[in-house]
Amino acid sequence: MRVGDIGEFGLIDRWMNSLRCTDTRCIVGIGDDGAVLQTSPGSVLVATCDMMVEGIHFKMSFAEPRQIGMKAMAINLSDLAAMNASPLAALVSVGLNPSLDVEFVDRLYEGISLMADKYRCPLVGGDTVRSPAAVLVDMFLLGEAPRGDITLRSGARPGDLVLVTGSLGSSAAGLDILLLRETRGQGAQSPGVSASVADAVIRAHLEPTPRLTEAGAIAAAGGATSAIDISDGLANEVNHIAKMSGVGITVDADLVPVSEPAIQVARALGKDPLAYALFGGEDYELCFTAQPSVADRISRAVLDATGTAVTHIGWVSSGSGCWLLREGRREVLEPAAYDHFRRDAGGGSGGNQV
Amino acid sequence: MRVGDIGEFGLIDRWMNSLRCTDTRCIVGIGDDGAVLQTSPGSVLVATCDMMVEGIHFKMSFAEPRQIGMKAMAINLSDLAAMNASPLAALVSVGLNPSLDVEFVDRLYEGISLMADKYRCPLVGGDTVRSPAAVLVDMFLLGEAPRGDITLRSGARPGDLVLVTGSLGSSAAGLDILLLRETRGQGAQSPGVSASVADAVIRAHLEPTPRLTEAGAIAAAGGATSAIDISDGLANEVNHIAKMSGVGITVDADLVPVSEPAIQVARALGKDPLAYALFGGEDYELCFTAQPSVADRISRAVLDATGTAVTHIGWVSSGSGCWLLREGRREVLEPAAYDHFRRDAGGGSGGNQV
Repeated sequence: MRVGDIGEFGLIDRWMNSLRCTDTRCIVGIGDDGAVLQTSPGSVLVATCDMMVEGIHFKMSFAEPRQIGMKAMAINLSDLAAMNASPLAALVSVGLNPSLDVEFVDRLYEGISLMADKYRCPLVGGDTVRSPAAVLVDMFLLGEAPRGDITLRSGARPGDLVLVTGSLGSSAAGLDILLLRETRGQGAQSPGVSASVADAVIRAHLEPTPRLTEAGAIAAAGGATSAIDISDGLANEVNHIAKMSGVGITVDADLVPVSEPAIQVARALGKDPLAYALFGGEDYELCFTAQPSVADRISRAVLDATGTAVTHIGWVSSGSGCWLLREGRREVLEPAAYDHFRRDAGGGSGGNQV
Repeated sequence: MRVGDIGEFGLIDRWMNSLRCTDTRCIVGIGDDGAVLQTSPGSVLVATCDMMVEGIHFKMSFAEPRQIGMKAMAINLSDLAAMNASPLAALVSVGLNPSLDVEFVDRLYEGISLMADKYRCPLVGGDTVRSPAAVLVDMFLLGEAPRGDITLRSGARPGDLVLVTGSLGSSAAGLDILLLRETRGQGAQSPGVSASVADAVIRAHLEPTPRLTEAGAIAAAGGATSAIDISDGLANEVNHIAKMSGVGITVDADLVPVSEPAIQVARALGKDPLAYALFGGEDYELCFTAQPSVADRISRAVLDATGTAVTHIGWVSSGSGCWLLREGRREVLEPAAYDHFRRDAGGGSGGNQV
């Protein structure tokens, strides 16, 4: 049996049980957005990592090196945001081909430093190695939080509402535009969408914003019962919450906030805009659950504090699995997750999985 | 200018200053074996990572997958040992080719788990991604210690003695045997050395032992003033200590404990056994400095507690740079470091460098 036959999630399932952490200092091990470790009484440490491989997670022809560095930080900061932890420090392992221009490395670190400064997550170390083929960027982030403040994937309860920050689908639409331009030649116009729409979705794909401030506002306004960041698509993330919480989740298609630029790209390409939101991934918005009594307060507080909208998209029930309400029908919402072993370009990296 | 032109250490120097950490929580950033972070009052966190790339740091034809997993843990645990930190938790990012047999992954994690259990450093998470070419294993380790217990590269003072645990050179000799067997065909005998000698040096190369227990015994018996683990060769490591401490170091060639199997391999291959110890690297012994008044006590304590010999090999003086006393002459001891961008097979990964 080959790795490609069972895929990323097959490998995770294969190892999830045998690697279950029994150490008393390990509060949460594999399976959430980050590991949660007890260090001092009352406060915990969150550790997370995401590896980006050239040709799988990014293309040198799509992203500037500065953007690769920024995104490596952003996708890990997003994991901390999902858990409501404050950034503490970052380490980065970089694999470089000797033929690469030093300028590339300068710009890569510039992107990392920019995010490190912006989110107060200093780069404190790492490793630089030779890579015979692809460029590799593996980022490790540490966050900290009072123990009671940590939000897990497993806390959703029947009766909770399901909410998301911002709007979804832009990142996948941006990847589509980039792939299309590659096929048709770099100078080609993006078909049927304005330059500003194309720029907006491409920027969403290449320079995602980790929702750390939003996470803080959610916590301050009453708190999420569970949370996850949207790295592999909304469908995948609600399935993670449902599975880890032992609940069912119903998403109303009409409520999902698909971004306006994503709708325009989808129309131009003859695609379903909702599919971008549900299965596209890499939006790095937060999907979370909250008790109905605090949901409105959270939405207002996040909007006031950050300008980011929070939208109610569904409900938590007893049972197990996820469903989508669409045009009067209720259908099973499969994860349809991006699997790094089965597709070739783009693709996020979700959670703390081994 | 290409990455290969300035090499790993050139890149580190290029970024060392601009990435110098100014955050108050960051006690030690880039440049030591690990980063030291202040989390709670009185205790610190040590974070370190080392990436291993197939074809650069290991060959699938040399190492069993279980040994690759073990070594990924060992070289990071060795960084914690150098700083006298206790293992807390590990995360691992793994890049896999889809054509790889799942059995390979099983054995890789088996090796990681084995070391995680042995050194009480639970694997709490990571990331699994597709790698188009080489297998990648990037390990991230967290350790903890009372703040005053941490040993840095920068603490050596004139008058201190320089000491090493165990014996040196076996790992480089083992790599030579492996390379020779590859050239001559797998079934070939190792020339001029017994099977047991060949096995011993190969095992030293593939299954290094992190000196965590030895580090504890050193600390308990009076403590090192500075320490580093020997990943890139003794010459490289004493230069690191000298540079970081602002001192000079003299090593007496006659005192360097070259391992008996390494001597036999060197003789059989017509090589200089001392070169294995000075420039071979990957022995993962500890090189440390201590005040003369406690050096004997440390040596006895480590031997009693662990069975590992500690050998006095040199002296710390004022000035800067390193020298080797050999056959009555005093010559400059250049780092002659292994550089991942300039050589092709084997090779360790030293310290927390970015």
